Amino acid sequence: MKKPPRRTAERILATTLDLFNRFGEPNVATTLIASDMGISPGNLFYHFPAKELLVNALFDEYLSEMNRLLPAAAEVQDVEHAWFFLHSLFELIWRHRFIYRDLNDLLSKNRHLEEQTKTVLQLKQQAFEAMLGGLQQHGLLNQSEAERRSCATHMVVVLTWWLSYEYVQNPRHALEETNAGQSALRGAQQVLGLLLPYLSELPKAQLQALIQVYSDR
Amino acid sequence: MKKPPRRTAERILATTLDLFNRFGEPNVATTLIASDMGISPGNLFYHFPAKELLVNALFDEYLSEMNRLLPAAAEVQDVEHAWFFLHSLFELIWRHRFIYRDLNDLLSKNRHLEEQTKTVLQLKQQAFEAMLGGLQQHGLLNQSEAERRSCATHMVVVLTWWLSYEYVQNPRHALEETNAGQSALRGAQQVLGLLLPYLSELPKAQLQALIQVYSDR
Repeated sequence: MKKPPRRTAERILATTLDLFNRFGEPNVATTLIASDMGISPGNLFYHFPAKELLVNALFDEYLSEMNRLLPAAAEVQDVEHAWFFLHSLFELIWRHRFIYRDLNDLLSKNRHLEEQTKTVLQLKQQAFEAMLGGLQQHGLLNQSEAERRSCATHMVVVLTWWLSYEYVQNPRHALEETNAGQSALRGAQQVLGLLLPYLSELPKAQLQALIQVYSDR
Repeated sequence: MKKPPRRTAERILATTLDLFNRFGEPNVATTLIASDMGISPGNLFYHFPAKELLVNALFDEYLSEMNRLLPAAAEVQDVEHAWFFLHSLFELIWRHRFIYRDLNDLLSKNRHLEEQTKTVLQLKQQAFEAMLGGLQQHGLLNQSEAERRSCATHMVVVLTWWLSYEYVQNPRHALEETNAGQSALRGAQQVLGLLLPYLSELPKAQLQALIQVYSDR
């Protein structure tokens, strides 16, 4: 049985996400989106009368996925689980990487993003503090309150700008689809690497082993 | 005695740097620069026939300042010295913050920046590895080779994207001139906070005291 054709608005969003991710939002005009889909600019305009509405709709999809994923941080009980959580976070970021590529420019032009991006940083901070608190409760690490807050902030910065770091090293290819897997692995490594000096011996060895396994791939 | 008037090209660069820093490079057209200076667009064009040349000239000033400052990393012998070095780095970044505000967009449009930005990341990485190596030689911290590399990478990411982090929290005011001092202090705190778990007792207490003093201001 054939799947029913997707509604035009959904197809427009999928195409826009793909083009934004490939070329960066500042470089994609609505005329390019329409021509890429083979529809008229008027048809696109009927569904999304301004480019900003496309940006907002895609951002809200990203936001609701983030809101579903982040609470899992509080359930993290061991190093493998932390690895899996970070990997999932980076996969989500990757699917919406246009937001991360031009974050400052996007939010300087868009009130909705200006408000919501700040909220996302706070949610990430809370999630990482919850994760660190959970690991401490399970006896895996030892931090003072101040260390936990500071470590969570470092995790937020590295999580949020890791793709930018990779982009600077290789602007022509870093954000191409073929790099999805490797990029998520390197990102998870870097963010969890921040925990290493705080972990007790056994989980530290486990995390180092995980990082080693994935570095060798 | 009056200072001799600056040459027009220098005045153009100073005005451009100021406007880029305040409004972001994507939002500043050459016509705005000319009108802000009260010169004709033709006069501006005579000195800089393309906006890209303004960006490149300002970037090269930044680059040569970075090249003068970074070698000092290898001379860092104690925690106060590290603090001073990081503070100087953030002051330099602040003076050229337009580069950091829209880094990915700038380098996606400009071959010169694409090449040079990668080099700057490598120079920062080497500088931090040299600093960590020096502190270890002076008995202040203890890291394996892998820890030193990883810690230096974390320092590079937090150094490079700290202003972006502050910008997301407060897009309307974070990059305004009045925040220069506080922003450099918070940045230095965050980057040096990455060393805390590796420091031995005395320098750790010294660094925590430094962070505390400046947090209270």
